This record gives sequence, structure tokens and C-alpha cells, in this order.
Amino acid sequence: MNRHRRQMRTMLVIGNVGQHHGAWREPDSGIEDADSLRFHLEVARRAEAAMIDAVFIADHLSMLGREAYAPAQHLEPLTLLSALSAGTESIGLVGSMSTTFSEPFNLARQFASLDHLSGGRAGWNVVTSAFGEENFGTDPLPAHDVRYARAAEFVEVAKALWHSWAPDALVLDKQTGTFAAAQKVQPINFSGEYFTVKGPLNIPRPPQSYPVFVQAGTSTDGINFAARHCEVVFSAQQGMAAAKEYYDRIKSGAVAAGRDPDSIKVLLGVSPILAATTEAAHERRRYLARLLNPQFARQLVGFQLGGVDLSEYGMDETLPVSILPGPTAVNRRKGRFDLYRRLIEEGRTLQDLVEIEATAAGLQVLVGDPESTARQMVEYFEAEAADGFMLICPSHRVDGPLLFDEVLPILRDWGYLPTAYRGTTLREHLELPFPDGR
Amino acid sequence: MNRHRRQMRTMLVIGNVGQHHGAWREPDSGIEDADSLRFHLEVARRAEAAMIDAVFIADHLSMLGREAYAPAQHLEPLTLLSALSAGTESIGLVGSMSTTFSEPFNLARQFASLDHLSGGRAGWNVVTSAFGEENFGTDPLPAHDVRYARAAEFVEVAKALWHSWAPDALVLDKQTGTFAAAQKVQPINFSGEYFTVKGPLNIPRPPQSYPVFVQAGTSTDGINFAARHCEVVFSAQQGMAAAKEYYDRIKSGAVAAGRDPDSIKVLLGVSPILAATTEAAHERRRYLARLLNPQFARQLVGFQLGGVDLSEYGMDETLPVSILPGPTAVNRRKGRFDLYRRLIEEGRTLQDLVEIEATAAGLQVLVGDPESTARQMVEYFEAEAADGFMLICPSHRVDGPLLFDEVLPILRDWGYLPTAYRGTTLREHLELPFPDGR
Repeated sequence: MNRHRRQMRTMLVIGNVGQHHGAWREPDSGIEDADSLRFHLEVARRAEAAMIDAVFIADHLSMLGREAYAPAQHLEPLTLLSALSAGTESIGLVGSMSTTFSEPFNLARQFASLDHLSGGRAGWNVVTSAFGEENFGTDPLPAHDVRYARAAEFVEVAKALWHSWAPDALVLDKQTGTFAAAQKVQPINFSGEYFTVKGPLNIPRPPQSYPVFVQAGTSTDGINFAARHCEVVFSAQQGMAAAKEYYDRIKSGAVAAGRDPDSIKVLLGVSPILAATTEAAHERRRYLARLLNPQFARQLVGFQLGGVDLSEYGMDETLPVSILPGPTAVNRRKGRFDLYRRLIEEGRTLQDLVEIEATAAGLQVLVGDPESTARQMVEYFEAEAADGFMLICPSHRVDGPLLFDEVLPILRDWGYLPTAYRGTTLREHLELPFPDGR
Repeated sequence: MNRHRRQMRTMLVIGNVGQHHGAWREPDSGIEDADSLRFHLEVARRAEAAMIDAVFIADHLSMLGREAYAPAQHLEPLTLLSALSAGTESIGLVGSMSTTFSEPFNLARQFASLDHLSGGRAGWNVVTSAFGEENFGTDPLPAHDVRYARAAEFVEVAKALWHSWAPDALVLDKQTGTFAAAQKVQPINFSGEYFTVKGPLNIPRPPQSYPVFVQAGTSTDGINFAARHCEVVFSAQQGMAAAKEYYDRIKSGAVAAGRDPDSIKVLLGVSPILAATTEAAHERRRYLARLLNPQFARQLVGFQLGGVDLSEYGMDETLPVSILPGPTAVNRRKGRFDLYRRLIEEGRTLQDLVEIEATAAGLQVLVGDPESTARQMVEYFEAEAADGFMLICPSHRVDGPLLFDEVLPILRDWGYLPTAYRGTTLREHLELPFPDGR
């Protein structure tokens, strides 16, 4: 059968009690435990029991002035993933780290260490950072093209560092006292526009050679970067047409860069709002929306529009296109800005924008009972608009059980999800090639 | 009894298979597992069973050209400690991170995250880095006083970030939707010579407010820094006279800085070489020395002397003082340079220097049977030349059992070591004050 040709790849977004900005207010949200390992280990273990390929942690290096209404902070990705590596066996561990606000040697070393600690389960979500300039002495934020130029050089340095130890560099000959073959541990002698790094890295070649490269670019720079360097792309698109167009751009970009299109997996971000019936799911959607302070809701959307004051607009009003700044004035989150501009042009209300922003940070919301939700996912997958999904739980404790105990088993019954992990490393789970041909 | 007035504080140096540069060659060293979590978890759990206050990871951001003969690389401290936090319950987790090669916001966030993940067990070994400039575009290494000036500003920024969330900032009022008290999450607006950081940190106040500050300064800059900022000092001294002098300098420096001398614990680094009898322990010392390639041994010592070529000197020869560079030419590892100069002036042989360098990186070696070793430790402690010890195992797997099953139980029987952890946080174990008066 057609549907058995390929199987869906899946990652679960973790790091907070849920992605919906109001979900912390639910009685069982677990917000009191949000800074503990216990909470996140519970979520990761549930995902592992369902054979999700990886957990995924997004990140910001700024509070964004949101502390009054919702958790805008969380545990740092690399430390949390390292702790989770000790409490899980198979699931991949993908974390965001910024190319704008970190050094290649430090980043390469921490990811190599995570890959060793986890036995080859590390993934790096490459971000150029839309926020955080105030905390790194780089205010204003470097221009979009400068951030991407630095990212490209950063990736070049990091890959060279990960390769600075040959796979067979460790000799460990106790008899002769030869620890490593010196000619197989080589400096990289990199000197570029942004970085000067001699190397070698001070940790041997990681099990996967380097972490799986993940990215969520939607700008032209971002898509070009992903097509060249990334192995998993986080697609943040609304609706079939946009998802399919994005998928095709990524795959053809990969081909243009000389890559096998199967070596880059496009995972569509989806946030299922679930209940036993579709009607009840819509009720849950409305309930979650009511958990948002209206002023906070306006602030969230106005922020993504480049700092527009929406306090005078009613929730059921449409917004005039004239309030938007020109696109050249937008230096961050270009993809989300373009999405909201399109929705405003289509006459969607402020409430519509709020729900999209607050529920899933601009990602596709799927409202329905388990089977209809599974069916919607199959549609995207069969249309080749997605190779799989980045799963966003509005609330891990409240929505997780229906997702894991109902939706995913249906997809497994239909043959779309694996019944066991494919191997021990994230590259094996995702059927991605090993950089050194293992 | 006098010896019951105070109890010894103890930390165990981990991160590799053992501190002796030749120990990886022993049949049971475990070197094949050195990059796995399993090995380090075994070591940390043994230390926890013995109620050691903390494990401690030293670090370099450079390979130092040593890969041919001995492990010069290891897992990155913050990722390894985070993983260990998931597999231990009580033991403190102290890691080195550089003020020269990292950003305060990133460092403050990772340590805050480790402190949350571990329930208040984090410690930061503040290092200004003697090596690594070639990997961070800062070649040559900034001068010693510049590194310390940056470190002082770094610590000021990091502490401000850790305090940017008041202890009671999290409100979590689900009824009203108030997540945090906005006036209790404040920017720090720091602008100095090295850093410009607005804040606030994007993670709430850690359980200990901030990690326990550890340092190993031996230069005047280093001692001044420790006396002002540190809570645990790693004393790298040879012999009673030097250890006592250093101890007194640290304590009087703390008093001069307006601090309670008890709020800074001086832990003397000691490397016990153990056997059932003192004679057998000396045999083990000689055996370990024979595991060093002689050319590598000369390279290790020559490196610490500022890059002197010792290849023409026999192991039993004394070294002429004239081979040493002037002290002003030494920009790193000043303390160890001074130590070796003194030993050369005293007419010690190259072999003596090799044993001190290779066994314990310049630290005090204690050779003996378990009881005589325990007695030597008591002597340092009772003379108030140490508040406790940084324990260095030549080989964790080979020497660990005698240390943990023989020496430490003797000290416990004599009343010098606690019979249970004093609390749940590292500050409680060490009886250190909480920065916000908890």
C-alpha cells in the first residue's frame, strides 16, 4: 500500500509545561514543577514509550518582557537534554543553540559531549536568534543577512571541529603507551570573517560524527541555509497549500545544492487540540483562548507584527493592513510576520491571530477528535507536504495522554509510525546518512 | 575532643579515568569507557555513597598537543554534570567554566539550569583559562591582569543575573492569570568595560541563589580574587609549610575583604597512592611512573616551565636554574611555575618533578597505607592548613576502592567525616551561607 512506502518522522516540542500561553493556568498543568527535572523526564519518557524520534527544545536568550502573564523562561536546552540523556534510552535529544550569541568551539564541544553521553542521540536546532541582543553587548541585533553569513561560517567551523578527530584516532594501546594517533587528531586552522579557530576539538569524534542538523528557516536566507546544511527542517506553515509549497522549495533547494532530497526531512509543526469529539475539541480551544489575558494576547500579536500597539482593537475586529511596518523594517521572525500579514490581508480577526499565536506560536492548529486529527496528519503526509511532524502539545499533562494514547496508536495501526526504534542513534531513527559513511 | 570541633570538607576530582597521566594504561583503567556516561556515573555514585560533598571537574579549552600519550580531552563539564544530576541524589556538582572564553548570560543560564535540575547542587569553578586562546580568536592569550579584570566584571554580571529574579517572583496565580510579579523580575542594566548586559536572566532564581563559587588561584591576582568572591578554594600546595601559608593568606584575605573566614573553605588537593602497606604503596608509585613515556614526561614538565626543552636531561639529573625563563615572561599557571622553580632550586631531580606533575598535576601526593594516609590528612587538617581535601585518584577504578573503602571509613570512625549529608544542597553540605539569607 502507498501509505507504507514511507513512515512519518516525529519530534515532540518540550521544555515547558505546554506550548499554549494560557495552559499553565489549568489545574493540572504542572507549572509548579516546570523548573524540575522530574516534569521533563516524565514528558520525555512518555514520548520515548511512543517511539517519537526526538524531543526538541526551542529557545530564546531574552525574557521579551513577558514574565507577568506566562512562562517566557525555561531550563537551558543543553543542560536539560544532558540530564534527560541519563533518564532515557533511545529517544533523540534536539536542542536550540544560537550561532549569533555563542562560540563555535564551546558549542561544538557541548554537542559532542551530549552525543557521547547519549550514545549518539544529539541534534542541534541551528538558530541565528531573533532576540537577545540586549544581553550580549550586540544591540542592535545584527542584520538578518549578517546573522546568516555568521551562521554559515559557524557551521563550517563546527563541522571541521567535529571532524578534527578521525573516527579511528583513539588507539588506546596500553602496551606501547600510544593513546591516540597524533596524525589523526588534526588542527583545523580556520581563519574567516567571523572566527579564527585552530583546533583540534578537545573531545574525540562523537558517535554520530556530528549532531543531526535541524532548522526552521522561512526567509529566503533561512531556506537556502536549510537546503545546504540541514537534515531536518521545522516547517511553520498554515494550511496545505503553504505547507506543500514550502516542502517543495526545501526539497528542490536540496537538489540544487547537490543533495539527495531524502537526506532532508521536512517536519510540519502541528498543535493538536484534542477531545473525544470534534465539538468538545472546539470547546477546549475556546476554553484555552479564555485563559489568555486579553491585554497580553494583544501584546503577543503586536510584538510579532514588529511592535504594533493593538490595545485599541477589539478581539472580533479585523486589522487594517496600514498598521504594519514595511517588510524591510523587519529584521527578525520574517516568516511569522509574513504569515500574519497574509492573514490580516485575508480579513482574519484579531482573535484569529491571537489563537494562532498563543496556541502554537504561529504553527498549524489541528482541532478534532483523535481519528480526525490522525486523518488530517495523513493528508499532509500523503500530499508530500510533510515527511512527518513537530508535535506541539498545548499542555503536556492535559493533552499529552490523548495524543499519545489515541492519535499516535491510530497512526501506528495504519502503518504510518514505526513499532520500534530503528536503531540506537538519532540518525538511525531518521534514516539519515552518517557524515563519515558509517 | 578537638578533632570534633570541625569536620573535613571533601570533593572528588572526576571527568577522566584518573589523574595520573599513565594510569589509563593499567588493565582495569576503564579507558575504553572514558567518554561514556556509565563510567562517570559509577565514580559519582561511589563518591555519593561515601558522602563526599561534591564531584569536581577541571577543564582546558585546548588539546595542548598531548593526544599521542595520554587523555588530554574529556566530556564537557556542564553537560556531564547535568547528566550526573539525573543519576545522583545528594552529591554536589562542581564544574569549571571560563570567564575568558564565555559570555556571562550563557554561563549564568547554564549554571542556573544545573542548579534547578539538581535541586541546588551546583558549583562553579571560576577559571580565567591558562590555555585555549587559539580556539577563540584571542591569540595571544590576554595578559594575566586583564583576564582577572574581566573575571571580576564577569562575576559581577553573573551574580546580578542570578539575582534578577527575586526569590518570590513566581506568583503562579492560576485564578488571576498572574504568572510572575513583574516588579520582581528586573533588568540589571549592566554596562562595564568588558560586558553590556541588560537582563533579566531567562530562568527564575536558582535554589541556591547562585552556584557555590570555587577557585584555585595561586597568583596574587588569584588569591585576591578568591578572598573576595570564592566560597571554596582549591589549594595546590606541596608540603605543610606551603599549605599553611596559603591557608592563612586566604583566610586573612577574606577577613580583609570583610568576610567571615568560615565562609571560605580551603580544600587542599591531595593524591593518595595507596596500598595495604606503605612499602607496597611506594612500589605502586614507581609502577605508575614507569607507565609514562620518558619523552612525554619531559614534555609535560618542560611545558609547565614555560616551554623549556628537557630532552637532553637524564631523569636522575638536577636541572640548572638558568634554563628557566624570567617570571615576568610567564602569563599562565604562575603558581605551578613558582613551585617547580622552587623544587629546581632545592636540587630536586627531573624524575621528582615528573612524578609531581604526572601524578597529580602539581598537587600533594600522599604515599602510604590507608591508616598512615588518613593520619597525614588529619595533620594538615588539625594544623589548620586545610578545611578539607580535593581528592585526586591516580586511577578511579584501581585506587578508588582503597580510598573509599579504607581511608575514608577510618576518617569517619575518627569523627572527621560526616555520617550523612547535612541537607539537600551543596551550600548545606558545606555549611555555607545562602546569598539571600535563606
